[in-house]
Amino acid sequence: MEAITSAHLCNFLAGAATVAPISTRRRQANAFSVRMGLKEDGPSLAVVGVTGAVGQEFLSVLSDRDFPYRNIRMLASKRSAGKKLTFDDKEYVIEELTPESFDGVDIALFSAGGSISKQLGPIAVQRGSIVVDNSSAFRMDEKVPLVIPEVNPDAMAHIKLGSGKGALIANPNCSTIICLMAATPLHRHAKVLRMVVSTYQAASGAGAAAMEELLQQTREVLEGKQPTCNIFKQQYAFNLFSHNAPVLSNGYNEEEMKLVKETRKIWNDPNVKVTATCIRVPVMRAHAESVNLQFEKPLDEDTARDILKRAAGVVVVDDRVSNNFPTPLEVSSKDDVAVGRIRHDLSQDGNHGLDIFVCGDQIRKGAALNAIQIAEMLL
Amino acid sequence: MEAITSAHLCNFLAGAATVAPISTRRRQANAFSVRMGLKEDGPSLAVVGVTGAVGQEFLSVLSDRDFPYRNIRMLASKRSAGKKLTFDDKEYVIEELTPESFDGVDIALFSAGGSISKQLGPIAVQRGSIVVDNSSAFRMDEKVPLVIPEVNPDAMAHIKLGSGKGALIANPNCSTIICLMAATPLHRHAKVLRMVVSTYQAASGAGAAAMEELLQQTREVLEGKQPTCNIFKQQYAFNLFSHNAPVLSNGYNEEEMKLVKETRKIWNDPNVKVTATCIRVPVMRAHAESVNLQFEKPLDEDTARDILKRAAGVVVVDDRVSNNFPTPLEVSSKDDVAVGRIRHDLSQDGNHGLDIFVCGDQIRKGAALNAIQIAEMLL
Repeated sequence: MEAITSAHLCNFLAGAATVAPISTRRRQANAFSVRMGLKEDGPSLAVVGVTGAVGQEFLSVLSDRDFPYRNIRMLASKRSAGKKLTFDDKEYVIEELTPESFDGVDIALFSAGGSISKQLGPIAVQRGSIVVDNSSAFRMDEKVPLVIPEVNPDAMAHIKLGSGKGALIANPNCSTIICLMAATPLHRHAKVLRMVVSTYQAASGAGAAAMEELLQQTREVLEGKQPTCNIFKQQYAFNLFSHNAPVLSNGYNEEEMKLVKETRKIWNDPNVKVTATCIRVPVMRAHAESVNLQFEKPLDEDTARDILKRAAGVVVVDDRVSNNFPTPLEVSSKDDVAVGRIRHDLSQDGNHGLDIFVCGDQIRKGAALNAIQIAEMLL
Repeated sequence: MEAITSAHLCNFLAGAATVAPISTRRRQANAFSVRMGLKEDGPSLAVVGVTGAVGQEFLSVLSDRDFPYRNIRMLASKRSAGKKLTFDDKEYVIEELTPESFDGVDIALFSAGGSISKQLGPIAVQRGSIVVDNSSAFRMDEKVPLVIPEVNPDAMAHIKLGSGKGALIANPNCSTIICLMAATPLHRHAKVLRMVVSTYQAASGAGAAAMEELLQQTREVLEGKQPTCNIFKQQYAFNLFSHNAPVLSNGYNEEEMKLVKETRKIWNDPNVKVTATCIRVPVMRAHAESVNLQFEKPLDEDTARDILKRAAGVVVVDDRVSNNFPTPLEVSSKDDVAVGRIRHDLSQDGNHGLDIFVCGDQIRKGAALNAIQIAEMLL
């Protein structure tokens, strides 16, 4: 069997087999520009969980967006400490994550799982850092803003960089971000009363090891071998399954309840009705979602399309004649969430219902990009 | 590049890499039984489109179910005529499909595409054959019954074998069959008012060549090559896309409108509200569907689960503790449709809403098995 090389995974992480590594891409795009990121008056940053899929994407997005920084700490578990890493042509040594890691850090980007966030997030805040946390640890905490910059920037307006006071800001769940990027512009116009969501979720949501397992299983199945099941308990290659998050007593899994509860919090609307069915599909790094919407006010499909075309961070891909609609592959490594299949819902009376299909990169807008957009609002 | 062998595809058609070819499996299962299919007083059969994925499955199901037959004609296009084929240990020569093919044929199982059905279906009927047609050609024809044997057997009660009169019976679309196998038992109890369906459809719905293309593309992508796109216009491996059926002026594609219209006809309820979003996922031969139901009468989830457990042709896989729910792979090559994720819909008031997740083998219950069950009702 041909070995799964990290180059394979890197290529998949980048969304296509032929894409060059991140640093090369950036250099090509900016061949004649001077790197603007490293600045004496920029904030001091820390990336927590820098070796993970989202941690790596934090670096990629920081670089792509020329996010200003005075210095940057690369933090991970003891296992990775001491390893070296190149970022913006400078070599860094990965440090073990400890409470002292946050001394002098202005902004800490966390993506190392809920238990690390719960344990070290409040410590970072005590030491004056503003924590942008990608885990679910604090999302439903009333005192913590849950922010999609295009949707509810006001929720974090009271948090100021340089005030000396630490703070927590939560990054929503990837499925919620991708869904609400498309649903919010319509919600603002016609008020969503009810939303029925079915997801098609990529491997990346379960981390880099899950992506690698999907690749490995696919090779094994093609060779007639039993697929290796370490991350997931069942065959993922050429299959799909109900999301692996634990199922609660109401029959919803935790991923589905995130969509239900986070939508209420982000829209500041405890009455919005949401149901969701979350499914893992054998796709690498972008989620798709089929979203059925019911509105209070009438909203025809042409108006909806116009609203979405003008929405920040959204691109409309909705060509009925050539059957060209959003796909996970085409949004992979892209910033914008793509929306298509925009149509009047035949099952609802009048102009009060729409069906849409949304795709967004899970690692990028679903995680790293959204977190860094939050950090940008602090600058 | 390693060649895609027909053995690979055969294994995938059978649903798992380690499953033996169909004839071997049957022989193992019936090692001590005498084949019962070939009977002097059985009907004369014809299989139209015998070389296709569904045509091959017709033979497999006929054999598995010991369907009685006096003789059987293997019919296909000119291209395949003259080739040999072994069925139930007997060798057959594939014949070119012509109007004369139906002389003396009692039951003709058609799966050769809509245009062949439109052209030769009525001719077969004129010559006295009862045609069970797997295409969409006659499904919405008022005079043609559209039948799922577990759902609406009465619709074909007037059609009798041996009456000398030919007739047409239409097999519903695969997505409709799989959805209604689960929804109908609940509908009978509490009357479905509205249904929101999102599908996760396998390659097999587009035929054996599409399954082969998915395999080929997957190998190519793993090797860093550009994927071959003959059947589909875009990458299918590690991707998903809106169903390839043409999109109509209302924004729905034809696959989605089949779910909308066929449900009304099969349930004989012009008022049932249905919307659907149909998506092709990189899975071989079984469809999954996320179905949100709204009922006229209250129906709690425990009652729904009990109803589904007693329903013919349905198996409930709904283990919340171990996160064990239906998957396409587990229903592959199985007769029953699997239902799980049965839960009270949080977005609907009272006990009038349920979410369910359904998986069914597209080639088997979604096509060949359902057609042969229709034929069995004629015996």
